[in-house]
Amino acid sequence: MIKANDPSLKSWIEVNPNCDFPIQNLPFGIFKTQSSSARVGVAIGDQVLDLAVLNKLGYFNNLKIGEAVFVNNFLNDLIALGKPTCSALRQRISDLLNETNAELRDNKEAREKALQYISNVQLLMPVKVGDYTDFYSSIDHATNVGTMFRDPANALLPNWKHLPVGYHGRASSIIVSGTNFLRPKGQTKPADVDSPVFGASKSLDFELEMAFIIGKPTSLGETISTAAADDYIFGLTLFNDWSARDIQTWEYVPLGPFLAKNFASTISPWVVTLEALEPFRTAGYEQTPKVLPYLEYTGNKNIDIYLEVAILPETGTETTICHSNYKYMYWTMEQQLAHHTSNGCNINIGDMMASGTISGPTPGSFGSMLELAWKGTKPLPLNDGTERKFINDNDTVIMRGYCQKEKVRIGFGEARGKVLPAL
Amino acid sequence: MIKANDPSLKSWIEVNPNCDFPIQNLPFGIFKTQSSSARVGVAIGDQVLDLAVLNKLGYFNNLKIGEAVFVNNFLNDLIALGKPTCSALRQRISDLLNETNAELRDNKEAREKALQYISNVQLLMPVKVGDYTDFYSSIDHATNVGTMFRDPANALLPNWKHLPVGYHGRASSIIVSGTNFLRPKGQTKPADVDSPVFGASKSLDFELEMAFIIGKPTSLGETISTAAADDYIFGLTLFNDWSARDIQTWEYVPLGPFLAKNFASTISPWVVTLEALEPFRTAGYEQTPKVLPYLEYTGNKNIDIYLEVAILPETGTETTICHSNYKYMYWTMEQQLAHHTSNGCNINIGDMMASGTISGPTPGSFGSMLELAWKGTKPLPLNDGTERKFINDNDTVIMRGYCQKEKVRIGFGEARGKVLPAL
Repeated sequence: MIKANDPSLKSWIEVNPNCDFPIQNLPFGIFKTQSSSARVGVAIGDQVLDLAVLNKLGYFNNLKIGEAVFVNNFLNDLIALGKPTCSALRQRISDLLNETNAELRDNKEAREKALQYISNVQLLMPVKVGDYTDFYSSIDHATNVGTMFRDPANALLPNWKHLPVGYHGRASSIIVSGTNFLRPKGQTKPADVDSPVFGASKSLDFELEMAFIIGKPTSLGETISTAAADDYIFGLTLFNDWSARDIQTWEYVPLGPFLAKNFASTISPWVVTLEALEPFRTAGYEQTPKVLPYLEYTGNKNIDIYLEVAILPETGTETTICHSNYKYMYWTMEQQLAHHTSNGCNINIGDMMASGTISGPTPGSFGSMLELAWKGTKPLPLNDGTERKFINDNDTVIMRGYCQKEKVRIGFGEARGKVLPAL
Repeated sequence: MIKANDPSLKSWIEVNPNCDFPIQNLPFGIFKTQSSSARVGVAIGDQVLDLAVLNKLGYFNNLKIGEAVFVNNFLNDLIALGKPTCSALRQRISDLLNETNAELRDNKEAREKALQYISNVQLLMPVKVGDYTDFYSSIDHATNVGTMFRDPANALLPNWKHLPVGYHGRASSIIVSGTNFLRPKGQTKPADVDSPVFGASKSLDFELEMAFIIGKPTSLGETISTAAADDYIFGLTLFNDWSARDIQTWEYVPLGPFLAKNFASTISPWVVTLEALEPFRTAGYEQTPKVLPYLEYTGNKNIDIYLEVAILPETGTETTICHSNYKYMYWTMEQQLAHHTSNGCNINIGDMMASGTISGPTPGSFGSMLELAWKGTKPLPLNDGTERKFINDNDTVIMRGYCQKEKVRIGFGEARGKVLPAL
């Protein structure tokens, strides 16, 4: 048995070097086909491995997992088996896909039942999200916003460097990549009129984020230390926190964003396990002033995930408008989770916690149109000759992300969403 | 058949005139006993009617409801049957309890199986809450807070009279009456030091609120008009939005309250149907300036629910410190729901939407310690000779509420929570 993360591993399934899903990744998702109900799958190359089929055929007999865990609308029941079992399952899948392993490779009938091209299946929401929290943990993003809307000399509010600012978001409107949605309507207050008006948002934006998914619950009153936090994180997805800036500006005082955000948030369909990402840990920003003891942590806790955003207009080709990286987070996931539970707030399997917009230090790495086009003052040119201050009707926004080291690329696939005109 | 709301109805079960649960109420809840699993019950007088037992005995045969709906940890599956079915069920229960109906009254064996004293059962969380939203819709409360922390001359922020300000809260930490919890710890920034500190909150407060529960889902992109909103509201509970003021002050800019709120919210165990509350509709405040068309409504949409809050110290007796009323809401539930969905945000059965602190126009009607003790400047005397600026360790806060007309009292029971010392 070679460990599932080993860079030397090769699968008997051919995987293109630019593919997000080599044998070292093995992300979990939920899919269905025209002939089958929703079930758990794992991405390998351009194919999906049907875990319900493999379980039924006895390939996971040693793990003793019930059929209902795999024939399921969500990953929550699988995740609830715990990290040791999920890790053993991932290792078993790695073994089965290993080029030297004949068990599945040489069983044509089983192979044909268990493997399908991703392009032939429908990918569904991977988890049932109980509660969704959004943080605001990129220092470059917070500085940009503070500079634009407040004071460049005091861009960060007094609390920002002392705690990972966060707020609750809407779980019901988190949708999986490929789900189109309507441009939201809402109240806005144009500067040149006395009273607010109601209509379609005129400044629809994306926010480039990552989200982590809770893998282990706590009870009310329980806390999680930064050292223990990784035990509670199952994996990550890309996250587009769609935002209507004009609605936000008018509604958000004093209790925060609400309808400016809760019309849709798009995630990538594959949950990449934290385990698969461990080789890509890296150091983050130095935290000055020193944080309070409950937020201290040791070791490298950022993750080097290259991120990009492209706009695809109704006609024409994609223009990549942002190159960023998850390593630019000032606050780590472990700190976010320690903070979130420091008051005893309980968490559940499937809860989603997003990073906040991930901007880097340079203009090309800013994670929102607000920052990229600097409040509309620097419109972005697209390949088709048009330009954008915000997102137009029928534009598709595509987020992608991957880690890369020693020719191993661990990616997330796409978080893709198209904005349809308001009704 | 006499309609379930008829004030002339009497039950063969004796109901004290000061009891919240006469035959005209029939609120739904979830309970269990030492010998039975969680199930749906209806309160009548000081007893609970076991709907699982009645269904099994054939009393609901005409309604054709499966056993799993009644033997259930939550009301969601019952609510999902729709208002016509739930209304027919309530009517059938009313008929069965009517003093002139012998079906259950004269069947000693069935009666003994189906009825238990509330004091002998454990009341559980009535619904599985998907998303929880908190509004800020009491004009007296918003004016008090604005006066205290901003400018008495401009107490309301510019958006306040144009839209029902709301924000997302934490669903996981909503707990049922009788569940104790720990005083939260968190970061605060005392005025006299340069850096924040971490420790137990020193200004723990309650917020007197009502919450309504969604009874019918929408899809992403769908909107609900104020005229249609009542079809989507199943019923209401009391709601205590516990708040740690010192944590809130430091954390809440710019994205709103987070850890100051999500350590616990206490609800009453019985869901009083909107149907039972209809006779108590009343006019609300006049809304000036005129609201935008999507927020206009006709008819009386406030509800006259008397509300009170008492503090019970570890030793001693209760002191009632607040007398308020749900009719003081500036924004109605119907407006809140129309606003919430105006951008296409989808809602699900079991979602909870709370009112925000309900304060009336006079000091004795203020719905939080912050307002009652006016930021600590006017400590409240208790019966035991002590006084309170905020809530002490081992204090129990008890909220109660009821409508009353023509000798019919439709009440909510209690939302009771005890604050244990921080660990």
